[in-house]
Amino acid sequence: MKVATWSEIESVLPEIDVVAAIESAFAAYSRGDAVIPPVGEMHLGAGEVHLKYGYLRGGDHYVVKIASGFYNNAAFGLPSSNGMMLLFDQRTGAPVAVLLDEGKLTDARTAAAGAVAAKHLAPTVQCIGIVGTGIQARLQLQYLARVTPCRKVVVWGRRPVAAQQFMADLPGWDVEIAEDLTDLCGRANLIVTTTPSQVPLITQVRPGTHITAVGSDTPQKQEISVEVLANADVVVADSLAQCALRGEISQAVRAGVFQMSSVVELGAVIAGKGGRTHPDQVTIADLTGVAVQDLAITDAVYRALQHT
Amino acid sequence: MKVATWSEIESVLPEIDVVAAIESAFAAYSRGDAVIPPVGEMHLGAGEVHLKYGYLRGGDHYVVKIASGFYNNAAFGLPSSNGMMLLFDQRTGAPVAVLLDEGKLTDARTAAAGAVAAKHLAPTVQCIGIVGTGIQARLQLQYLARVTPCRKVVVWGRRPVAAQQFMADLPGWDVEIAEDLTDLCGRANLIVTTTPSQVPLITQVRPGTHITAVGSDTPQKQEISVEVLANADVVVADSLAQCALRGEISQAVRAGVFQMSSVVELGAVIAGKGGRTHPDQVTIADLTGVAVQDLAITDAVYRALQHT
Repeated sequence: MKVATWSEIESVLPEIDVVAAIESAFAAYSRGDAVIPPVGEMHLGAGEVHLKYGYLRGGDHYVVKIASGFYNNAAFGLPSSNGMMLLFDQRTGAPVAVLLDEGKLTDARTAAAGAVAAKHLAPTVQCIGIVGTGIQARLQLQYLARVTPCRKVVVWGRRPVAAQQFMADLPGWDVEIAEDLTDLCGRANLIVTTTPSQVPLITQVRPGTHITAVGSDTPQKQEISVEVLANADVVVADSLAQCALRGEISQAVRAGVFQMSSVVELGAVIAGKGGRTHPDQVTIADLTGVAVQDLAITDAVYRALQHT
Repeated sequence: MKVATWSEIESVLPEIDVVAAIESAFAAYSRGDAVIPPVGEMHLGAGEVHLKYGYLRGGDHYVVKIASGFYNNAAFGLPSSNGMMLLFDQRTGAPVAVLLDEGKLTDARTAAAGAVAAKHLAPTVQCIGIVGTGIQARLQLQYLARVTPCRKVVVWGRRPVAAQQFMADLPGWDVEIAEDLTDLCGRANLIVTTTPSQVPLITQVRPGTHITAVGSDTPQKQEISVEVLANADVVVADSLAQCALRGEISQAVRAGVFQMSSVVELGAVIAGKGGRTHPDQVTIADLTGVAVQDLAITDAVYRALQHT
């Protein structure tokens, strides 16, 4: 059995085509090849913990992922995310790998899903709007760079100083700070929302916009108004089952302005069934994070570690 | 962060009073001090996986336990159980310990719960009836020895050769093999059922019997007939919430012959609220396995490992 720390994992990550692995995981999921039980959830005073687990039928492994968000961790000098990825043998239940990734493989597979969504749904990208200034905001750009040549970015954050730092940290990108969210939505035609907000931040968009919403992964969190979602031309879920219960889509369904029957699954879009048909359409991808992503990245890292 | 193998864990286990730790965990649980989300479950072709997790309010840690049963593992020369116990910091989500216990701490805490149930519910024990001949059957006796002086055992197993081996493996115990389950129920007044049966094995008992049922931890498994359960004088659940959904009690409730309102929780019995009031009563403890047990044993092992 392999136990790997983040520094070991990080050293093999460049060998892996994470975007391709995540793309093929979503395709397998939407083909019905995966068994993914409902997300487990635990709320503590200072944070929340998600358990995601599942397997591909006929595969070698099953994955169990523990991921936490403790939003006051900065006070301890720690990042908000933590957790680990566990791989087990599908025939015997024997542990195969413990990847002590500190939540960073979750960050990576989430950012890679953003790249997959943009690749299949965004129009020709003129300007990328990033909502939020944390680790996920940076990683989204890093992975988007693999699927679009656009390097023009407009960023918005709750704290202006964080947006300034974000700009300073991204040499090679043409980053400007948005005056406000209306300014951001007016300038970007690919918008990625990466915050744990519980109130809608995006309340209007212009035609020809794609939004990837990665922040909301619970029934409570929301970054996009239910009206923007209800008026979109194409709404894509990473998982129909999960998005009915958590994330942006679940909010709009509960508000009664939107129906699950209008949603197409990301893996189906990847397979060419649905998606954007006109540059002026508004498309939205709601990414709540699916255990097939955890399985795909953990499997790929485990295989890469075998060669080191 | 501590990563420990089974041999390290095993070496500190004798330092721990597991029965006392489990007893106090159940008491805390029934006082309402614990947060225990519903059990996560995953079915694979060759086995099943349970995820149990939770924490005590105001405690240091939360636990996540992965436990699997792959019942054809003997063909690979492996025990059916496997898994691991994970401990995390309640304030930050940071991992504290990975105990690679191969499912053996689950075995231990389950056996310790059997001892706790017998301590508080059994009459004066004249003969212990053990149904099943596997690891859990042996461990139940090992832990019962801490709460009763009785060393007289009658055992029943599906395969006579396994019962013979069970008898041979337990020097110091006066073990006899039951002719059948009727014989066992006629001789023992403390019966412990430890099988993954999906059909009732115990269909009648004499007055003054206590049964601890540890085998059924899913909605499907069943070792005790719904009639025996419905006719018992005292029915105890390790967790009211869990036993409504899985285990012996859930079977009898679904069959319409029994109501949850008749059930008392083990932690309440420990606190002196409910339990056996007469030697001739039939008492049943339905143990489905609660994450507070996993937390208690993992916490205790972690503390013991700190001193080594």
